[in-house]
Amino acid sequence: MSRLVMKFGGTSVANLDRIRNVARHVKREVDAGHDVAVVVSAMAGKTNELVAWCRDASSMHDAREYDAVVASGEQITSGLLAIALQALGIQARSWQGWQIPIRTSDAHASARILEIDGSELISRFTERKEVAVIAGFQGISPQTGRITTLGRGGSDTSAVAIAAAIRADRCDIYTDVDGVYTTDPRVVPKARRLDRIAFEDMLELASQGAKVLQVRSVELGMTQNMPIFVRSSFDAPEDIDPHGTPPGTLICGEEDIMESHVVTGIAFSKDEAQISVRQIEDKPGVAASIFVPLADANINVDMIVQNVSEDGKTTDLTFTVPASDHARARETITRAKDMIGYARLDSATDVAKISVIGSGMRSHAGVAAQAFKALSDKGINIRAITTSEIKFSLLIDTAYTELAVRTLHTLYGLDQT
Amino acid sequence: MSRLVMKFGGTSVANLDRIRNVARHVKREVDAGHDVAVVVSAMAGKTNELVAWCRDASSMHDAREYDAVVASGEQITSGLLAIALQALGIQARSWQGWQIPIRTSDAHASARILEIDGSELISRFTERKEVAVIAGFQGISPQTGRITTLGRGGSDTSAVAIAAAIRADRCDIYTDVDGVYTTDPRVVPKARRLDRIAFEDMLELASQGAKVLQVRSVELGMTQNMPIFVRSSFDAPEDIDPHGTPPGTLICGEEDIMESHVVTGIAFSKDEAQISVRQIEDKPGVAASIFVPLADANINVDMIVQNVSEDGKTTDLTFTVPASDHARARETITRAKDMIGYARLDSATDVAKISVIGSGMRSHAGVAAQAFKALSDKGINIRAITTSEIKFSLLIDTAYTELAVRTLHTLYGLDQT
Repeated sequence: MSRLVMKFGGTSVANLDRIRNVARHVKREVDAGHDVAVVVSAMAGKTNELVAWCRDASSMHDAREYDAVVASGEQITSGLLAIALQALGIQARSWQGWQIPIRTSDAHASARILEIDGSELISRFTERKEVAVIAGFQGISPQTGRITTLGRGGSDTSAVAIAAAIRADRCDIYTDVDGVYTTDPRVVPKARRLDRIAFEDMLELASQGAKVLQVRSVELGMTQNMPIFVRSSFDAPEDIDPHGTPPGTLICGEEDIMESHVVTGIAFSKDEAQISVRQIEDKPGVAASIFVPLADANINVDMIVQNVSEDGKTTDLTFTVPASDHARARETITRAKDMIGYARLDSATDVAKISVIGSGMRSHAGVAAQAFKALSDKGINIRAITTSEIKFSLLIDTAYTELAVRTLHTLYGLDQT
Repeated sequence: MSRLVMKFGGTSVANLDRIRNVARHVKREVDAGHDVAVVVSAMAGKTNELVAWCRDASSMHDAREYDAVVASGEQITSGLLAIALQALGIQARSWQGWQIPIRTSDAHASARILEIDGSELISRFTERKEVAVIAGFQGISPQTGRITTLGRGGSDTSAVAIAAAIRADRCDIYTDVDGVYTTDPRVVPKARRLDRIAFEDMLELASQGAKVLQVRSVELGMTQNMPIFVRSSFDAPEDIDPHGTPPGTLICGEEDIMESHVVTGIAFSKDEAQISVRQIEDKPGVAASIFVPLADANINVDMIVQNVSEDGKTTDLTFTVPASDHARARETITRAKDMIGYARLDSATDVAKISVIGSGMRSHAGVAAQAFKALSDKGINIRAITTSEIKFSLLIDTAYTELAVRTLHTLYGLDQT
C-alpha cells in the first residue's frame, strides 16, 4: 500500500464522460489499496472563457477579482469528480484551496504556494479511506483571506505540493502524452520514451520547449524530492494493471537512475531570431546598454554570446529573441544606438536553436565536441554556441533543424532499437 | 445618506453588457452618497447548466458536492461585477458566502441562514466607501466548513438577510418587472402597480402565484422589519433620479401604509383540480385517512373544504390539487377506499381558484359577501369557498376566470383610473 497524488488536466476532465473515465482511473488505485488525493484542473476551455469575461469587464481588471472568477473552474470540476467517484461507491469529497488550506503569497494571478496543511487529508485517509478531490491552481492568501491562483498551468504545481504535504510516495501527472521523449517524435520517428529522467534534465528539457508539464512543478519536485510520474490519461482505466509498471516517465533524483546516458534528450526551437551587434566597445556597462532597453520593451532574450575581443578594444555581441519580437528588438537597439555605440547591426530570422541536455555531461568531457564534428560532417554550419553544466545549445540555419536533431539523436545513442 | 442593499437576479447579469448596466445602477446610488452592498445571482442559465452537470455525474448526487459546484455561478458574477465597478472608478470587492461569513444550517441545497456577521462590511463602508459585491444564494456550514446553498431563488433571501445584518435602510430587489400589481396585467389591463404593500399581503400574493420574489425573503423581511423595494433592472440607470421616487413597489410593515384599500390584490390559478369525496363518516380520523395517503404520494393539497354534516353522520369533503396530479390523486383515494369508507368520488379539472387578499379585511366585515353577490350577478357559480384572516379563495369554473378576476378587481376599487 502506498499514498498517491493523481493529477488530471483540462482535456482529461473536458466533459462528464471524461470525468467518469478519470473516476475509473482513481477507482483502480483505490481498489489496489492506495490512499489517493486527486488534483484537477478546470474543464478544457473553461478557464479561457472566464479569463475572457474578466478582460471584457475591464482590460485593467483587479487580479484579486480575476482570481475569484477563474478559480471557480477548478471548483466545478472538483465537485463533479467527487460525485462521479461516489457513484462508483468510493468515499470522496471535494476540497477548495481555502478549505485545506493551501496558503499562498498574495501575488494574485501568479501566487506562490507557501504552506499546505496536509493533516486533515491524512487523517481522512486513515479513518475513512476517503479520497480527497482537490481543486488545483488555487489557494488562499492568509493575510487577506482571499482566493489566489497560481498562474496558468499551476495545477501541476498544486499536485506536487499536495504530494509533499501528505507525504505521498509519488505524484502521477495524467496528461495527453504518455511520457517524456528524448526529442519530438514528430521530427525524429526514432525518438524514445524515457523510463526515467533526472529532475535537472527535465527542467532543461521543459524550459527548452517540451510542453509536458510546468517548469515550476519540476522545480518543486526537485526541492521536495517528490518523484513525478508522467503518464497518459487516455489509456482505458480497465486495461492498466495497478500492480504492474504502466507506460510513462518517472522524473526523479539522479540517484534513482541506475544507468543513465550521458545525453538525456534534445530540444529544439525554430521560432528564433538572431541579432548581432558589431564592434561595440569592450568596456563595462556596454552589455547593460543593450539589454536594459530590451527588458524595458518586455522582449525576452534567450541565448547571449559574447566573445573575448581580439584587440581588447571592440567585440561583437550576439543574442536571440523570439522570432515574433525580431522587428521590435531591432528598433529598440537602433533607437539606443548612440548610447550603445556600435558599428553595425546584423540579424536573421531563419535560425533555429538546438539544445543537447544531460546531467551526465558533468562527468564526461568532449560531449559537445562530438556534436560539432558530427554536424560539420553533414555540412551544417554552427552560428553560435552557449554551454552550461548539463546542457549546450547551438544556433544553426532553420533549414537544417530536422537533419541536425536526427544526427545528434543518433550520435548520442538515443535512437529506439 | 442611507445604506442600501441592491439585488440583481440572473437575467439582470446575463452577460457582460448587462453586468456593466448593473454597475451603472450601483454607481448612481454610490454617487448619491449611499453605502451600497450588492447581492448577485448567477448569470441566467448558468445554474441550470451546473445542476445538469451534477445530475449527469450521478442521479443520486451528494448535496454537499452539488453545493460546491452550483455556488460557483454566483462566485463568477460577484467577481465580474466588482471588476466592472472598478472600471467605473468605484471601490469594490467581491465576497463569497464563506468569506463574510454567511453561516447557514448544514441542510445542503436548501440551507437556512443562521447568522451573518456584517461588521467587516460596515467598517469598509465607513473607512473606504467600498461597495460590497456579495455572491447570493450561498453560505457556509459552521460545523463542516463546507459551502451551502439556499435552494433556488435563494438570492432574494440572501439580500434581505444581508440588509438586516448591515442594518440597511432598504433592500432593493431589481427584477424583470417594475413592481407588484393588483393582479396579472395580462388578464386585467386595468391592473395597477401598488406603491406599497404590507408584508403579510405580499406573502399571500406570492404564495398564490405572483412570481415576483421568493416567499422566504418576504417572511424574512417581515420578521426583520426590513422594507423591500421591488423595481425594474431594465430602466436605463442614467434615467433614474437617485433623489426621486422611482417606479416600483415597497413591501413594508402595515404601519407604514397610510391609506390602504381593504383589498390589496387578486391572485388566481387555472391549474387546479377539484376532488370531492362524498358521504364519508363524520368521525375523527377520517380526514387523516384521506390526506396521509396523498402526502405519502407527494401530492400537494391546497384548498380543503369540509362542511358541518347535516345529519351528524356523513359529510362531503372537497380539496384541490395541481391539475397535473389529478389522475394520481384519484388513484390514491380509490386505492384507500376501504380505509376511508366513502360512497362516491367526484372530480373536475376545469376549475380555477381566485384569491382575494387584503390585510384590511381584518377590520372590515362583509368583504367576501360583496364578492359572492357580484359573481352571482354575472352568473358565475361558486363551487367552494375557504377563508382566512386576510384572504378568501373561491373555486369556480375555469371558463369564468378572467371575467371573475376583472369583476372583483373593479368591485374592490383596484382599477387604474
